[in-house]
Amino acid sequence: MAKESFVEQIADIEKDFPRWYTDVVIKTGLVDYGPVKGTMVIRPYGYAIWENIQHELDTRFKATGHKNAYFPLLIPMSFFTKEAEHVEGFAPEVAVVTHAGGEELAEPLAIRPTSETIFGSMYSKWIQSYRDLPVLINQWANVMRWEKTTRPFLRTSEFLWQEGHTAHATEEEAEEETMKMLGVYKEFAENCLAIPVICGKKTEKEKFAGAVATYGMEAMMKDGKSLQAGTSHYLGQNFAKAFDIKFLDKDGVQKLVYTSSWGVSTRLIGALIMAHGDERGLVLPPVVAPVQAVIVPIASKKPGVLEKCAEVKAQLEKAGVRVVFDDGDASPGWKFNEWELKGVPLRIEIGPRDIEAGKALIFRRDTLSKEEYSLDGIEEEVKKLLTAVQKDMLEAARVRRDNRIVTADSLEGISDGVEKGNFVKAGWCGCRECEDKIKAETNATARVIADGVAKKCAVCGKKAQSLVYFARAY
Amino acid sequence: MAKESFVEQIADIEKDFPRWYTDVVIKTGLVDYGPVKGTMVIRPYGYAIWENIQHELDTRFKATGHKNAYFPLLIPMSFFTKEAEHVEGFAPEVAVVTHAGGEELAEPLAIRPTSETIFGSMYSKWIQSYRDLPVLINQWANVMRWEKTTRPFLRTSEFLWQEGHTAHATEEEAEEETMKMLGVYKEFAENCLAIPVICGKKTEKEKFAGAVATYGMEAMMKDGKSLQAGTSHYLGQNFAKAFDIKFLDKDGVQKLVYTSSWGVSTRLIGALIMAHGDERGLVLPPVVAPVQAVIVPIASKKPGVLEKCAEVKAQLEKAGVRVVFDDGDASPGWKFNEWELKGVPLRIEIGPRDIEAGKALIFRRDTLSKEEYSLDGIEEEVKKLLTAVQKDMLEAARVRRDNRIVTADSLEGISDGVEKGNFVKAGWCGCRECEDKIKAETNATARVIADGVAKKCAVCGKKAQSLVYFARAY
Repeated sequence: MAKESFVEQIADIEKDFPRWYTDVVIKTGLVDYGPVKGTMVIRPYGYAIWENIQHELDTRFKATGHKNAYFPLLIPMSFFTKEAEHVEGFAPEVAVVTHAGGEELAEPLAIRPTSETIFGSMYSKWIQSYRDLPVLINQWANVMRWEKTTRPFLRTSEFLWQEGHTAHATEEEAEEETMKMLGVYKEFAENCLAIPVICGKKTEKEKFAGAVATYGMEAMMKDGKSLQAGTSHYLGQNFAKAFDIKFLDKDGVQKLVYTSSWGVSTRLIGALIMAHGDERGLVLPPVVAPVQAVIVPIASKKPGVLEKCAEVKAQLEKAGVRVVFDDGDASPGWKFNEWELKGVPLRIEIGPRDIEAGKALIFRRDTLSKEEYSLDGIEEEVKKLLTAVQKDMLEAARVRRDNRIVTADSLEGISDGVEKGNFVKAGWCGCRECEDKIKAETNATARVIADGVAKKCAVCGKKAQSLVYFARAY
Repeated sequence: MAKESFVEQIADIEKDFPRWYTDVVIKTGLVDYGPVKGTMVIRPYGYAIWENIQHELDTRFKATGHKNAYFPLLIPMSFFTKEAEHVEGFAPEVAVVTHAGGEELAEPLAIRPTSETIFGSMYSKWIQSYRDLPVLINQWANVMRWEKTTRPFLRTSEFLWQEGHTAHATEEEAEEETMKMLGVYKEFAENCLAIPVICGKKTEKEKFAGAVATYGMEAMMKDGKSLQAGTSHYLGQNFAKAFDIKFLDKDGVQKLVYTSSWGVSTRLIGALIMAHGDERGLVLPPVVAPVQAVIVPIASKKPGVLEKCAEVKAQLEKAGVRVVFDDGDASPGWKFNEWELKGVPLRIEIGPRDIEAGKALIFRRDTLSKEEYSLDGIEEEVKKLLTAVQKDMLEAARVRRDNRIVTADSLEGISDGVEKGNFVKAGWCGCRECEDKIKAETNATARVIADGVAKKCAVCGKKAQSLVYFARAY
């Protein structure tokens, strides 16, 4: 069978990064195209990554006092018009239900592109007193934004995400929450996805429609482009005003609440692929890898080989390692290629000579290096290696990224920097014209405002208001 | 504050069961009505039950070899017409997207009411060879069925569920899968929800639109009505034909696969409420209860009381018990009522005299009984009690149910039996006319075909084809 006889070819990552990406996501069985244009089917191998991401994030959300809930998919169109910026930002992308149960609806309903409005309408009902605050709710859900050009995980009409929506008695508390969740995302991205991220405030142009301030985390992909991997919004009283979310404070005065919202999505799977992948395919960090180690028997027909492999598999499973024993008919070489394509962090090779010597060869997908380990107590070695891979992948990604951050003090400098696949730090006066000009000339956008100061705007030469990371972005 | 000074009143369960249900779901904060008619917001307390249900089921699905995936929400309307019975059953309830991204769509898209068609379309692409079989995929998702009359959890336009969709090389395997998953549901319902269920085949009239055979599990609610708590469908080659799902078998012949599908939904939360609830509110089985034990301090201002409660809380948490320490301002009596309303299985009362005696009082929500336990090693006692509550709740529900199963050999007997809130076992000739007549005269439907035989049809007196459970149903 074709399926058994060769490993799928993927495009050269250096020569054609976009095709490499498409090849990898499709040929590893992470995802497939759905029948409706712009939709995706997340296949079991891709969904298992999402389950691991969910588990890690959900644990963190609960540890910071949040509870999960589920709000309706359909939102009355009229809700969107209650917040002026919000409707402007989201109405053009909305999918609309006009008929249901064989009848035309009195009011068309939007499939949620994000749920600030419907959370707002319920919070207005639930929140009466300062005793009801803060409200800290998250939901795991599907959302829909009708996009013209789509790519699996990165931009699809439907995607999966989590959205936290919180309400607070004071501005300080809501701002603190906004920053706290940005911090949770950053820690998660670095420790679970092994992706170093740059966090900071977005410019007015790039902020969420309806927010007072948006904070983003940006990750560098292997082509030097930036991917917005998560956002946390301080919404001030914008949605409180739109949905009349008031509470009776301790001082007996009716006040509007302050809200925040924050989210990450299945886009993170795209980030994983493009931050770590290489010419052989996926490279997955152990914390979120569906399979952490694969055992491949060498000369599997020789007596004792399959038995030893099964024994090692049982040991690893008992030690909590997600392990697969590939006892299929294909050759070891074919199996090596396939599991490398799939990005499994460790491959354990066990053959007759290894068994005789009481050893096994372990191959690291991240460094492409192979070393011998004693079969005795191999589960402890595997666990140590998984920890090392996780840590080293983050460090390697950090080095790659830091080598690609440059500074510029002119439009040409920005253009040159992003053309070479860098993030460019440059001064910016704060005006929309200069920001637009950078986009028009270089196709780069302001990713986040950096720590640190700049003297002058790289475009107009006026006094700089801030130092900004510019990059081309997904 | 009103919220602090009294526990919400609920209707009398004996006098007005429907209002009791509505009062309980709303006043315990399980759910609220969404802004669009027929939708619900599952609030944190309700969603936590769903998370526990998901965890228990997901573990069982994975242990039986299934993997999770995610398929698109939107299905081309044309897909439904490919299976004649399926479209007839679901088209009238479908919600339709006609506009998206500011434009009218070329083809209207259905929001999935169930996903056999979209799974079928992808399986047709993925399955080529016998080596690709079986395909065992489940998804956790939202679905939408536009209903005229709705009730939270029981019947809402949108609900959450899981749907397993499997494909097999042979009829036997697909049938075995159908029965295996029905068995998984039954074991889960009994051991996790403490609900004894009656499983069996559905009549032609009651089967899933598009199935060869549907097997259901039926649970008795406290008003004697039946609730369909889960279904497993053997689909034969119906969807394989409609979506051309073929594989090359070992013998070199192209064959159609055989498929199954099976699902349970947030309806299970409704089942929990109505199977166990009483005049004081919810009674939750420990396995799925968001809070398994609540600690209420008595004379909490006396020195040492709050400290001892906090200490016990820490001990219980360490032992893996989901515990809340209610250190709020309200009186113990108020707290007792509130946590009883919320159905928390155990209440631990600790006051100065208890501490002196080295004891605590533990109240069981299921039996309304109170007993003294030593504070020393209390976590072990609590764990034993939780196990006992779980087991006793199932037994109590079984006794209640068995006392309400009667037999009848006439239409009057069926009518009389269901009027009194029973499940009625009666012979049935197998014809649709008699089934319709029972429904018309008694408002009861055939729930499942029972084990055992009957001599004659209770309606027409002809030879009985089978013994059937008839009941009024949700």
